[in-house]
Amino acid sequence: MKLFPKHNKQKANHIPGELVHIGKRHAEETRLSFIDYDSETYQERILQKVDEAYQTKGSKKINWLNVDGLHDMLIMEKILSHFDIHPLVMEDLLNVHQRPKMEDLDAYLFIVLKMISFDNVTNDIHWEQVSFILSKNYLITFQEKPGDVFESVRERLRKSKGRIRKLSCDYLAYALIDAVIDNYYVVLESISEKIEAVENEVVANPSSQILNEIHQLKKHMMLLRKAVWPLREVVNNLIRTESPIIKKETIPFIKDLYDHTIQVTDSIDTFKEMLTGLMDLYLSNISNRMNEVMKVLTIFAAIFIPLTFVAGIYGMNFDFMPELKWKYSYFVLWGIWFLIGGGMLGYFKKKKWL
Amino acid sequence: MKLFPKHNKQKANHIPGELVHIGKRHAEETRLSFIDYDSETYQERILQKVDEAYQTKGSKKINWLNVDGLHDMLIMEKILSHFDIHPLVMEDLLNVHQRPKMEDLDAYLFIVLKMISFDNVTNDIHWEQVSFILSKNYLITFQEKPGDVFESVRERLRKSKGRIRKLSCDYLAYALIDAVIDNYYVVLESISEKIEAVENEVVANPSSQILNEIHQLKKHMMLLRKAVWPLREVVNNLIRTESPIIKKETIPFIKDLYDHTIQVTDSIDTFKEMLTGLMDLYLSNISNRMNEVMKVLTIFAAIFIPLTFVAGIYGMNFDFMPELKWKYSYFVLWGIWFLIGGGMLGYFKKKKWL
Amino acid sequence: MKLFPKHNKQKANHIPGELVHIGKRHAEETRLSFIDYDSETYQERILQKVDEAYQTKGSKKINWLNVDGLHDMLIMEKILSHFDIHPLVMEDLLNVHQRPKMEDLDAYLFIVLKMISFDNVTNDIHWEQVSFILSKNYLITFQEKPGDVFESVRERLRKSKGRIRKLSCDYLAYALIDAVIDNYYVVLESISEKIEAVENEVVANPSSQILNEIHQLKKHMMLLRKAVWPLREVVNNLIRTESPIIKKETIPFIKDLYDHTIQVTDSIDTFKEMLTGLMDLYLSNISNRMNEVMKVLTIFAAIFIPLTFVAGIYGMNFDFMPELKWKYSYFVLWGIWFLIGGGMLGYFKKKKWL
Amino acid sequence: MKLFPKHNKQKANHIPGELVHIGKRHAEETRLSFIDYDSETYQERILQKVDEAYQTKGSKKINWLNVDGLHDMLIMEKILSHFDIHPLVMEDLLNVHQRPKMEDLDAYLFIVLKMISFDNVTNDIHWEQVSFILSKNYLITFQEKPGDVFESVRERLRKSKGRIRKLSCDYLAYALIDAVIDNYYVVLESISEKIEAVENEVVANPSSQILNEIHQLKKHMMLLRKAVWPLREVVNNLIRTESPIIKKETIPFIKDLYDHTIQVTDSIDTFKEMLTGLMDLYLSNISNRMNEVMKVLTIFAAIFIPLTFVAGIYGMNFDFMPELKWKYSYFVLWGIWFLIGGGMLGYFKKKKWL
Amino acid sequence: MKLFPKHNKQKANHIPGELVHIGKRHAEETRLSFIDYDSETYQERILQKVDEAYQTKGSKKINWLNVDGLHDMLIMEKILSHFDIHPLVMEDLLNVHQRPKMEDLDAYLFIVLKMISFDNVTNDIHWEQVSFILSKNYLITFQEKPGDVFESVRERLRKSKGRIRKLSCDYLAYALIDAVIDNYYVVLESISEKIEAVENEVVANPSSQILNEIHQLKKHMMLLRKAVWPLREVVNNLIRTESPIIKKETIPFIKDLYDHTIQVTDSIDTFKEMLTGLMDLYLSNISNRMNEVMKVLTIFAAIFIPLTFVAGIYGMNFDFMPELKWKYSYFVLWGIWFLIGGGMLGYFKKKKWL
Repeated sequence: MKLFPKHNKQKANHIPGELVHIGKRHAEETRLSFIDYDSETYQERILQKVDEAYQTKGSKKINWLNVDGLHDMLIMEKILSHFDIHPLVMEDLLNVHQRPKMEDLDAYLFIVLKMISFDNVTNDIHWEQVSFILSKNYLITFQEKPGDVFESVRERLRKSKGRIRKLSCDYLAYALIDAVIDNYYVVLESISEKIEAVENEVVANPSSQILNEIHQLKKHMMLLRKAVWPLREVVNNLIRTESPIIKKETIPFIKDLYDHTIQVTDSIDTFKEMLTGLMDLYLSNISNRMNEVMKVLTIFAAIFIPLTFVAGIYGMNFDFMPELKWKYSYFVLWGIWFLIGGGMLGYFKKKKWL
Repeated sequence: MKLFPKHNKQKANHIPGELVHIGKRHAEETRLSFIDYDSETYQERILQKVDEAYQTKGSKKINWLNVDGLHDMLIMEKILSHFDIHPLVMEDLLNVHQRPKMEDLDAYLFIVLKMISFDNVTNDIHWEQVSFILSKNYLITFQEKPGDVFESVRERLRKSKGRIRKLSCDYLAYALIDAVIDNYYVVLESISEKIEAVENEVVANPSSQILNEIHQLKKHMMLLRKAVWPLREVVNNLIRTESPIIKKETIPFIKDLYDHTIQVTDSIDTFKEMLTGLMDLYLSNISNRMNEVMKVLTIFAAIFIPLTFVAGIYGMNFDFMPELKWKYSYFVLWGIWFLIGGGMLGYFKKKKWL
Repeated sequence: MKLFPKHNKQKANHIPGELVHIGKRHAEETRLSFIDYDSETYQERILQKVDEAYQTKGSKKINWLNVDGLHDMLIMEKILSHFDIHPLVMEDLLNVHQRPKMEDLDAYLFIVLKMISFDNVTNDIHWEQVSFILSKNYLITFQEKPGDVFESVRERLRKSKGRIRKLSCDYLAYALIDAVIDNYYVVLESISEKIEAVENEVVANPSSQILNEIHQLKKHMMLLRKAVWPLREVVNNLIRTESPIIKKETIPFIKDLYDHTIQVTDSIDTFKEMLTGLMDLYLSNISNRMNEVMKVLTIFAAIFIPLTFVAGIYGMNFDFMPELKWKYSYFVLWGIWFLIGGGMLGYFKKKKWL
Repeated sequence: MKLFPKHNKQKANHIPGELVHIGKRHAEETRLSFIDYDSETYQERILQKVDEAYQTKGSKKINWLNVDGLHDMLIMEKILSHFDIHPLVMEDLLNVHQRPKMEDLDAYLFIVLKMISFDNVTNDIHWEQVSFILSKNYLITFQEKPGDVFESVRERLRKSKGRIRKLSCDYLAYALIDAVIDNYYVVLESISEKIEAVENEVVANPSSQILNEIHQLKKHMMLLRKAVWPLREVVNNLIRTESPIIKKETIPFIKDLYDHTIQVTDSIDTFKEMLTGLMDLYLSNISNRMNEVMKVLTIFAAIFIPLTFVAGIYGMNFDFMPELKWKYSYFVLWGIWFLIGGGMLGYFKKKKWL
Repeated sequence: MKLFPKHNKQKANHIPGELVHIGKRHAEETRLSFIDYDSETYQERILQKVDEAYQTKGSKKINWLNVDGLHDMLIMEKILSHFDIHPLVMEDLLNVHQRPKMEDLDAYLFIVLKMISFDNVTNDIHWEQVSFILSKNYLITFQEKPGDVFESVRERLRKSKGRIRKLSCDYLAYALIDAVIDNYYVVLESISEKIEAVENEVVANPSSQILNEIHQLKKHMMLLRKAVWPLREVVNNLIRTESPIIKKETIPFIKDLYDHTIQVTDSIDTFKEMLTGLMDLYLSNISNRMNEVMKVLTIFAAIFIPLTFVAGIYGMNFDFMPELKWKYSYFVLWGIWFLIGGGMLGYFKKKKWL
């Protein structure tokens, strides 16, 4: 996860509305899969040519064209011209550093979302941009690379589970967005487990490595927050849109979605606050431990330095030192040493340093 | 209290609107208790079969069906179909990780709340989700497990205390929600006592264990806040709803409820701020104590290290050291030692380290 | 000042609208004082029985009944039934842990405020709840205990100072609320003096006791803020109410009051921020002092430990140590010691530690 | 600059609407200066008696009466009664602890502002309250003491520079308010230079004195912010007022003024944030330096304490210590010492402590 | 980048609406470049006299006059009078310390923006103010000095790339503003690389120099934020303006611009938060390292100080010390030393200090 997308330098030099893919090229070739269905029939195909997707355009079936890989400008331009997409929408589609947004262009709705996955080994969050072009009975989805969270929806379509095959195209779009947001829960759960592991370590054994882990998680939360907050607005706009593409029957489902996005953003905020709390806890723990170290040092120094001084006195070579001759001096001295040492220990015990 | 609910992984794979219980299974079997009353009569029963709850549907009495335990899908589906509940409402009912919310579905209002209890021994907060389906003269409440804060309301119904038996079904719902929110005060009072105990310890004896206690309490406040804030909106929506289910006479009571939720959220915010303040106080106290420790070390070192050096000088074995021969050297040296030691003590006293 | 009121546990078990006094019992017995006046006449009495207050109800004079002490349920119920007060209002009156609020119940306005006083010796803030029931020409005020800030208003009534005797009942209410809020200035001034004293001590001599004082003051500010903020809304509601009880002529005065509440809340916020700044300053000062201590220790150790080592060398008893025999060894050694010591001092001077 | 105005204790005991001057008495006697002008004529006088200001009241010239010093109640009452000012306005005029505010009283607008000046020597900010009473062609300004920022406006009036003499009375008020706000820039520039000086010192040489300076500046910013923020609202109200006193032609100028107030408040916020950043930087720098000190101590102690121990071994007086007899012991020991010392130095170099 | 513009002291003394250039004089002489085009023709000239720009005024071509350098009042006044610009707009044009703003003056729109560039060597951000006066088919842009980010737009005009030559004058203004904002991305990318470099250093090797770098970057972010935030409002006002100058067809492009400004401000906020996090990380790292240093010191001191004391005991010169005579004393002592040293090491290992 980068602090700032790296490909915008390209952007600063390009013309608004021009088709340029901004982002890493993830896939070998653009893959087009096409599904059309109504409550009775269901067909799923991999398209060889983009033109195959237009043939069914006249029918009353619901059509879903899924595009994996955004770098093939030839295919992109074909879709653009066929479906009469506004140049700026196309540009946004191709720039994978968009904020999530929803735009109503009368003939269709344009929705941009972020799909995320958490890599438990590297503790990194991976992003993928998913765009939706939703018209009356046609849905086009664009993804950066193959492999997605939509498989469960396809499965429901195939097996006609739930009410999905009976409902309109906007319900399909809802189901897919729901799949994207449900996936956030999976990521948040992984992160919450990570945070709890870190918390336990901070309490038990605050190493300096854990400090960097807290910092990394905090950074993730910051970037995640930036990416997820606009989602609320996107879904809220879907609820309040007056576009006839969104049916009245679908609204309660989208409202439910809105509750989910709130839960997601609330959790991210809580996680961030939690990590700030852990940073404070870490710092306090380190101070505590330093206190501990200092006490050990001080106790040793305060006991033995005076004793060593006393020993030093009687190591002097003056010709005239009366104590040196006295037979019991040495034994008396041991007594004095024990008195001093015991006194110091008692003093530190009283101070609760021991 | 978990940072993030653990059962959402199930969720990511299920179909919206499908009936699945998400949450721990707390009860052995689902328990249905049924109360119907008007100002003259009152009847309270444990139902063996869910169908018994429908018989009184036609009457003008107020009916209250309480369901303890959400895992029995057979019973749930029966209620669902009988009362014609929207699939998404049913889904929300069964997922115990909902945010508090209130939805107006014309035929009925759907309300989700959180019941909390504070375990004084483990310092943990326990959650339970309570849902209300409130129609004209029928109220259904769903709880995760038996044992609730509704007993006081039942008692009032039984003994016809207050005005409760004379008023409509929404007043009953109000009374139950009031019982839930009143219970928050009990929890907050326990927590405030805990915080004051922690505060006293931080001032008197800041151990490292108290640090973790502050952290735990802060974490509780964070999660509590996340759960309680939506309550304000829920109650506010109840006030402003135009649904005929909420009678005009009940509004002042719900307004009173709103004041209570504000007091609860205000207190949680104050507690959180208080705990942050305690963390700072702790850190400052630790720094103070380290200062103390360092002063002891420095005083001992600064006094005895020079003295030891002087003793070391006259412990040298040079053949030619004039002082060694002089008769009064040893006694003069004692004088010098006292001068050095006294001077250092005076210096530290002037610096206010002693 | 408590973090959380202690008597709410009672509350959780009582019926909404039932008359229970929640709070400490401050007064021996409830004391009723009654004033009625118009521009010509003025009468002030202590009532023996609550019924005496109703006699003047028909007259066109302005009537002010002041109740000190809330625990006598008999008196309370008499007033309740006579003036036809809504049960929830009565309940709020008796629960002294209300947030300040203003409610318009058509026949009368119900206002709850907090009176505060600062105890300069214990540094504690004392609270008292004052409630107003204001109808067309009747004002009832409820206080927890005798002794109030209303004396100056009574004095003006008695001496007919200002315009007070000529104006309506809402102006009397305004004058009393103004007296309550003006009293906040007195408290804030005491606190500001306290903060400035603390500030001077933090700069001059940051003892660990001052740390707790900052913490206490911060806690006070937190609780004060929670209690005073709702005041703004209360006064704002008074300005915007459409109730005929508030005369148009009184509005400019209430607007003035609103400015005062803003000044009070602004000052509380500034004080809080100031105290947070003082906490930071304290911590930085402590770090500075620790630095000072460490420098003293390091200078002593870095100078004398090497010298002691050198002395230790020539205290060894080897049979063959050429320097021991040499006549000038001892004096050369003194030179070396001065060189080392002077070099160290120069080094520390260059480092600006001295 | 005081944390809280000191004269409010007086206030708590006085009657709303009564004329009392609250604030320090700055001037010996109240000074009245009077200017009347139209595009052709211009006259400037010092008035001996307040009545002289009324004579021109009928004319179509623009009249500006400036009052320096607020303590002479006789003059104040004369003006009050002549211009028919609302008692509360008069009261606000005399209390110099007002928040900036703008009130529309139909016949005139009442505006309160704060004039500030920064004392570069004492680093203190001085306040003065300026009030405006603006009617159709009469402007009265009230200041606490002689000497103001209005001189530049008077100069323009005298020399008829710019469009000022041709425009209406509200433009004159605008020009004066503009002069007040422009003066804020001068103060902010002084403060910004102060902050940059402090910043350089924190980076180069973080003394404990600089800490108090940061604290003082932060305190100033806090109080300044409290005083300046309401200005935005004041100017915004001037833009949106529907009073005919503010001409349509003057609105663009007031909008410009609004931009300036935003720049002022933005700068104050930036300065505050900057100072908080400097406090953090200071603390980090102190920690860095302590680290430095500790390293010096540790290096000296870790090298010489073991060496001293070795020397101590051979200073023992046991009868049987074989090494003492061996001829080369002493020289071998020097080798060991160099090995230990060099090893320690290498170790610390590897740790990057040197 | 200065904390506060330095030339406002001039401002405090000048008359509103008077033409004075406030800011540094960057260019030798004011340079006027003029472009006029329609879909067929395109002409680009450097003007010698300002009058040449008016000749084409009547034509239907789109005219773009670009002014580099603002200090030549003669030229400025000519443009002012010719295009009938409001004096306040002219004043704002010449004062380069404006906040970004957009004003609708019916005949034209006035837009002020900031152009920024990041100097990678000095880590400093440079500012330049760009103003736009946009009327129906005439655009005037004002810059402080030659050299701009508009070259790419000119290139597109010359080569007729994209749709720019076919569209109206407001599209040209959009394209230029887009160029300015796209340039922000370049700056933000440089800064994000800087932050990541700093982050790596904080983790690996927290030197005191890196601390100042964090502080400088934070300061930049603070000032950048202050300058960029108003941009959102500017672009939002362009979207919502009802001026006929902005064509309906251009709105989607401006909406796209709005998304970009949000991304820019979001990134600045994230960067600021990130830098605060790095400051905390730095402080924690320093504490960690101090802990490390203290442990080394304590281990050395705790092991060798007691050993030295023991050696000191047998260096005493008492006549009667039985151990001195015993043959194996010395060897036994070595055993004791190893026991003490080993015991201490074991103790520290158990404490996980080693």
